[in-house]
Amino acid sequence: MAIAIAHLGPRGTFSEQAALAYQAWLQQHQQIDSALSAYPSILQAIQAVAQEAVELAIVPVENSIEGSVAVTLDTLWQLEALQIQQALVLPIQHNLITHAKNTHQLETIYSHPQALGQCQQWITRHCPQATLVPTRSTTESFRHLEESVTTAAIASAWAADLYQLPVLAQTINDQPDNCTQFWVLGKTASVQGAHTSLAFSLPVNAPGALLRPLELFSEANINLSRIESRPTKRSLGEYLFFLDLEASLAATPTQRTLRALENSTEQQKLLGRYNTIPVVACPIEPSN
Amino acid sequence: MAIAIAHLGPRGTFSEQAALAYQAWLQQHQQIDSALSAYPSILQAIQAVAQEAVELAIVPVENSIEGSVAVTLDTLWQLEALQIQQALVLPIQHNLITHAKNTHQLETIYSHPQALGQCQQWITRHCPQATLVPTRSTTESFRHLEESVTTAAIASAWAADLYQLPVLAQTINDQPDNCTQFWVLGKTASVQGAHTSLAFSLPVNAPGALLRPLELFSEANINLSRIESRPTKRSLGEYLFFLDLEASLAATPTQRTLRALENSTEQQKLLGRYNTIPVVACPIEPSN
Repeated sequence: MAIAIAHLGPRGTFSEQAALAYQAWLQQHQQIDSALSAYPSILQAIQAVAQEAVELAIVPVENSIEGSVAVTLDTLWQLEALQIQQALVLPIQHNLITHAKNTHQLETIYSHPQALGQCQQWITRHCPQATLVPTRSTTESFRHLEESVTTAAIASAWAADLYQLPVLAQTINDQPDNCTQFWVLGKTASVQGAHTSLAFSLPVNAPGALLRPLELFSEANINLSRIESRPTKRSLGEYLFFLDLEASLAATPTQRTLRALENSTEQQKLLGRYNTIPVVACPIEPSN
Repeated sequence: MAIAIAHLGPRGTFSEQAALAYQAWLQQHQQIDSALSAYPSILQAIQAVAQEAVELAIVPVENSIEGSVAVTLDTLWQLEALQIQQALVLPIQHNLITHAKNTHQLETIYSHPQALGQCQQWITRHCPQATLVPTRSTTESFRHLEESVTTAAIASAWAADLYQLPVLAQTINDQPDNCTQFWVLGKTASVQGAHTSLAFSLPVNAPGALLRPLELFSEANINLSRIESRPTKRSLGEYLFFLDLEASLAATPTQRTLRALENSTEQQKLLGRYNTIPVVACPIEPSN
């Protein structure tokens, strides 16, 4: 029986590309069949796992240009019993998709705010006259194109192909190494993985009290590959911290450090242990 | 002669409210006349100062629910010679603005992504059927209202009043203590202030190397009121850190610590010294 995997839709998003790559990996390495299920927002994709409408969700967590995806971190902290099972890094190439024949014709450019942010310098250079309008996903912007020569969307070449839309300019992202890390979330914890992620709040005077946790990891020789602060949403100046450790939860120093950490944190939550799976190629057609 | 102050427009945004409060403070405490100038994006408001089209910009930097405003931090790092001159904290109360008579009629709710995020639980409880659509500012969402009873906007009561639109539900933000910190940016540095902000990148293995900077501040007994990481935009896993210090730049320990910090950072940038000015009341009408 096939398991269901939630992702941000509609068809053609980078999240769907990540989900397709993961689907191929699952089939090849674990002989597990899966079917993809598109949701209108990242929040709803994650909630679908929590409510057991699907087995897994694959969601963006961090882009190399635009940084953390706040809704992913905040929802992981708020919802119980969700665990990161795998990570996956997808290269992101943006394209200007439009019926216009040149960029001077464009009055409005639609895309997801992260995509608009990742192409900001290119847009300023080539379409300074255009108004930028955010949409809920890269491909949702396609519904503004119709036959107009004054509107454009920003999305992947794969999405343009899928919807049979013309690409006016390729690879318009400001940084060539643009990529996004995705997490696969489920309700069961992995039993192995070279990475461990956790989040915690601090008792008082948050950023001052961050020193002790960092010292604990340093003393145990555990490298942190990421540290991110998010507001507790209680009052300005109170933070949660999200840490990715380059350490296996199975290792004794990690176990000991996490126990010691409990004395320096207010609330602490293990988000999961996982490996990063290689993305071989961007698949062209879904198999579900 | 009046100085010009840039802010995110159109009329009625929380940024304009902050700008009006600052305008009143400038007049009262420094006998400086000012005129407000609305820009379509936060980026453009900041660029206007850098290009000397205006003297000052007032921009949001952090909300107690939604966290940092990435474009403000990233632009301050990228552009030369901008300095934080003042800070100001504005209470944020959101309202559901619509011609509908009850929430069940609503099909679409428009607002700035930060405002949608700040009212997420209320919307899920009262309008689970509604689609959420992001706009570039809270008041830009008003153009979707017209005479429709199926659309709503989220903005301040002051904005509803300004545009003579009906409020269906008041104070719909999920946290009553919702507030946003704004920074006043200019091209000259203040010569005094109880707060100091700076940003730096780290040589290698960023988050592991963060320990030394934090130790330096701890040794000098300097409290950090905020620490925020942002991607360097070069490659995934490389970060900048933005720190707010509860310390005056004029104090010897601060000077000494910032000099010592240069040995542990790759690039370091002083963003300004400033005080937080009290917001007495939300003004109703601009004086320009």
